[in-house]
Amino acid sequence: MKNQQEFFIKMAIAAWSLQIDRASKLFDSLTDTQLQKQVSENRNTGVYLLGHLTAIHDEMLPLLGVGEKMYPALGEVFVKNPDKSNLDKPLPHQLRMYWKEINSTLLLKLNAIDTNEWFDRHAAVTEEDFRIDPQRSKLNILLIRTSHIAYHIGQVVLLKK
Amino acid sequence: MKNQQEFFIKMAIAAWSLQIDRASKLFDSLTDTQLQKQVSENRNTGVYLLGHLTAIHDEMLPLLGVGEKMYPALGEVFVKNPDKSNLDKPLPHQLRMYWKEINSTLLLKLNAIDTNEWFDRHAAVTEEDFRIDPQRSKLNILLIRTSHIAYHIGQVVLLKK
Repeated sequence: MKNQQEFFIKMAIAAWSLQIDRASKLFDSLTDTQLQKQVSENRNTGVYLLGHLTAIHDEMLPLLGVGEKMYPALGEVFVKNPDKSNLDKPLPHQLRMYWKEINSTLLLKLNAIDTNEWFDRHAAVTEEDFRIDPQRSKLNILLIRTSHIAYHIGQVVLLKK
Repeated sequence: MKNQQEFFIKMAIAAWSLQIDRASKLFDSLTDTQLQKQVSENRNTGVYLLGHLTAIHDEMLPLLGVGEKMYPALGEVFVKNPDKSNLDKPLPHQLRMYWKEINSTLLLKLNAIDTNEWFDRHAAVTEEDFRIDPQRSKLNILLIRTSHIAYHIGQVVLLKK
């Protein structure tokens, strides 16, 4: 039975990795110039979406209780503020580096989380709220964030010729 | 232990439902005219993406072993062929109806699948291939298709003003 639980966790991590790999290949296939374009008229640029996904994944480290954010400044630029803020953005080659670094660190940490721990509450939910809604677990964060990558890949892919 | 397994199946179905609800709200918020536009220059129209998601979900019924396709003709138009094929497409209001009908049927069936059965192979994998890669289960189809909805929602949302 324990085996089947571990199996499910592995499946969820595999689904996550699949999206990360697709996103990585997609970002690698785009030049910096392509990445600086908007995915559609008046919409986010590829650079913003790369920064946004990177920042959200960085925030997963404390959310899952496996570490501190590696690049805490990203959240201000790519989560709390829109693309058209006047905030300075890191250059594409820096963002590409952060993307790789954060995701490889995160994947190592995901693989090290104990099976039972995945069913614990994540850091943004209180003990009381978790009693009311026990689905707000670490595992749920992983499932939701997996869809989140897919959502934005669907947009970034529009930058391809 | 059985309890915890049921719990993560419920979580996976909840993650699926979340994307279905988001997609449904999004499609409902768009007029037929908006839906007929391309999500970006030279890309798929909203109508095609609505048909595509509907067809893929229809195919999940036999894939998960819970029924036959309800509208088998959709696959030819929206999966096997691109938007710019010369095939006749159902009208937006028909597609909206198929979308609701197929997804509500599918959700009922998903909720009725036995916990252990989720770990069985899906219909498109042979027994032999499943022995080699036991992750190719019904549950994995659900996880992958959940990301698939998110991917296309990310595109359809670009049709909103």
